[in-house]
Amino acid sequence: MNTSATQKINVQKVESSRIGQVDFDNLTFGSIFSDHMFECDYKDGAWQNPTIKPYGPLTISPAAKVFHYGQAVFEGMKAYKDENGKVWLFRPEQNFLRINKSSVRMAMPEFPRDIFFEALIELVKLDKDWVKPGLGNSLYIRPFVMATQVGVGASPSTEYKFMILLSPAQAYYLGDVKVVIADHYSRSANGGVGAAKAAGNYGAQFFPTNLAREKGFQQVIWTDASKHEYLEEAGTMNVFFRVNDTLLTAPISDRILDGVTRKSVIALAKKDNITVEERPVLVSEIVEAAEKGSLKEIFGAGTAAVISPVSAFSYKEKTFELDKQEDGFASRFKKELLDIQYNRSEDPFGWRYEVK
Amino acid sequence: MNTSATQKINVQKVESSRIGQVDFDNLTFGSIFSDHMFECDYKDGAWQNPTIKPYGPLTISPAAKVFHYGQAVFEGMKAYKDENGKVWLFRPEQNFLRINKSSVRMAMPEFPRDIFFEALIELVKLDKDWVKPGLGNSLYIRPFVMATQVGVGASPSTEYKFMILLSPAQAYYLGDVKVVIADHYSRSANGGVGAAKAAGNYGAQFFPTNLAREKGFQQVIWTDASKHEYLEEAGTMNVFFRVNDTLLTAPISDRILDGVTRKSVIALAKKDNITVEERPVLVSEIVEAAEKGSLKEIFGAGTAAVISPVSAFSYKEKTFELDKQEDGFASRFKKELLDIQYNRSEDPFGWRYEVK
Ligand SMILES: Cc1ncc(COP(=O)(O)O)c(C=O)c1O
Ligand SMILES: Cc1ncc(COP(=O)(O)O)c(C=O)c1O
Repeated sequence: MNTSATQKINVQKVESSRIGQVDFDNLTFGSIFSDHMFECDYKDGAWQNPTIKPYGPLTISPAAKVFHYGQAVFEGMKAYKDENGKVWLFRPEQNFLRINKSSVRMAMPEFPRDIFFEALIELVKLDKDWVKPGLGNSLYIRPFVMATQVGVGASPSTEYKFMILLSPAQAYYLGDVKVVIADHYSRSANGGVGAAKAAGNYGAQFFPTNLAREKGFQQVIWTDASKHEYLEEAGTMNVFFRVNDTLLTAPISDRILDGVTRKSVIALAKKDNITVEERPVLVSEIVEAAEKGSLKEIFGAGTAAVISPVSAFSYKEKTFELDKQEDGFASRFKKELLDIQYNRSEDPFGWRYEVK
Repeated sequence: MNTSATQKINVQKVESSRIGQVDFDNLTFGSIFSDHMFECDYKDGAWQNPTIKPYGPLTISPAAKVFHYGQAVFEGMKAYKDENGKVWLFRPEQNFLRINKSSVRMAMPEFPRDIFFEALIELVKLDKDWVKPGLGNSLYIRPFVMATQVGVGASPSTEYKFMILLSPAQAYYLGDVKVVIADHYSRSANGGVGAAKAAGNYGAQFFPTNLAREKGFQQVIWTDASKHEYLEEAGTMNVFFRVNDTLLTAPISDRILDGVTRKSVIALAKKDNITVEERPVLVSEIVEAAEKGSLKEIFGAGTAAVISPVSAFSYKEKTFELDKQEDGFASRFKKELLDIQYNRSEDPFGWRYEVK
């Protein structure tokens, strides 16, 4: 990872910061952006003109392919500030690798490692005052790539734009999360793009998620599209099931996002000698475990909310409540992850990365 | 359908047309746009400010939800000019109904019928010189809707933009189309968004289609994601198989786009007393028919190319060639459709719609 100050990136600073106008105690997730953004264009087969500039609108053709054919991928990561004012990233290498994996699946060009990291570091350094201290506060980082070639013929774009936006975030407390296990709609197909963080995967989930909301549930746990027999993941979280003292989670496949939080939870669990089974998890075995009382916890794992305990799930019109676990696996992994992310503990796996 | 001149739409005309700069004999599909475009914004729960204005770039936030969550749907239709200079649309009602069906599945607001038709008619009338006479020439019409709310939280947008672009097109001759029958990748899932003309469905196909191209095939015929046993549709065309004198095509489902050309072919076939079976079509029965010699034709049906005869298909590394049919079903339906579209024949189904 090259973190040396860069000559390559053209930096245009704002004349005056907007930070004074922001109410950091009342942030809606993802709605306020920091002073600067990063932009780099792909043209004639090469990524060109990497530039940090004031956050602001784009001028783009209405015929740009992103609007018509959804060639667009993104990442989500965070910067954290510790008690000494140092700023940290968490496993940024994973997000770099994943955005390129997503791009390949969407027939988009990969982004170069050196520019990715230089841009990320320079941008976060420039806007480091937007990373507020305090557990749960963070600066959400949104790298994304979109197709910009003008043309409504259905073929891959020859031009792209890679960008990074920064958005200050407070602790993302979802409240009691109640989930519906999908038995009709689905998120992705075998051989589809579910393993890519492709824009269209998210818009596709909004309608069935709205149906769940109307019934008082916040999220959907997706199942396989063939028979809805196997539990896969939630909208923006991977999902873990604790049956007695064993942790179950779906294996990575071409239908499931390979979450950074998921793999970190698995590593922490193994370190703590908790049995983790990465294997197809049947809906029926979880329903049965709930009925027998051996289902202790369900939780989601993802960058935005870190760990989200699930308080109830419904399956085919039947709802199962889960007892609150004061010091269950969910709260334990959440604490361990936050401690690493905020530099409050050792970092046995080398996950923390200082922005300096 | 209300075609009266409208007061509702604000019309800003170009000062001078770009039409003189366009080489109408050498058009690349979907790359040149006419003088005007239509734009209408959804805000505060209503579609507002319908406007026809000079074609040109948009100013849009990089945090607009379309870039991140792929809430975007579109339509594709055409205007045709007859020998007397009259301009015609083909079954525009179908495209109106379908864009709203797509929007509902993507948790987007429906667009009002009256503004849709008024905008369409006014816009095509204003740019009617861009519809060139001559069989095969047309003005391709691209209505689309995208999410414009600023925000990188994964939830439905509260703001949208509906637009119509016009792009002059020549006969879209694909040459000999050779197709690969999918046995690994897939286009859509049961309970997914395949039946919607959602932007992300198209970007998702580019990578597997590129793999087919590298092997000398132009298109993929998608199969069901569960077992790849059933033939579904191609990238931008529905697909028909002629076995002896019977026409087979996959039934409409939540995985397949309900094509206007497909339903028109079915209607024409029935009128002509050709047996049409809309039912799941097994890959194995088509392979077997090819081996026995009873598979006479395969063709795609879609607005862009009308009817595209398939000259060969490959399945699991084996390639099957199809004999050229000088006056087979493909050329017969193509002629019948073009004759109706270009006002060269009777219009027994009332499909033609004059723009005046
Ligand atoms: C579909 C999906 N699954 C899982 C996750 C969790 O991944 P990560 O832990 O890398 O944030 C995310 C998002 O971030 C996601 O979008
Ligand atoms: C996936 C898909 N299937 C089929 C079609 C054919 O539909 P229509 O005949 O309405 O153009 C299209 C496109 O236009 C399409 O995008």
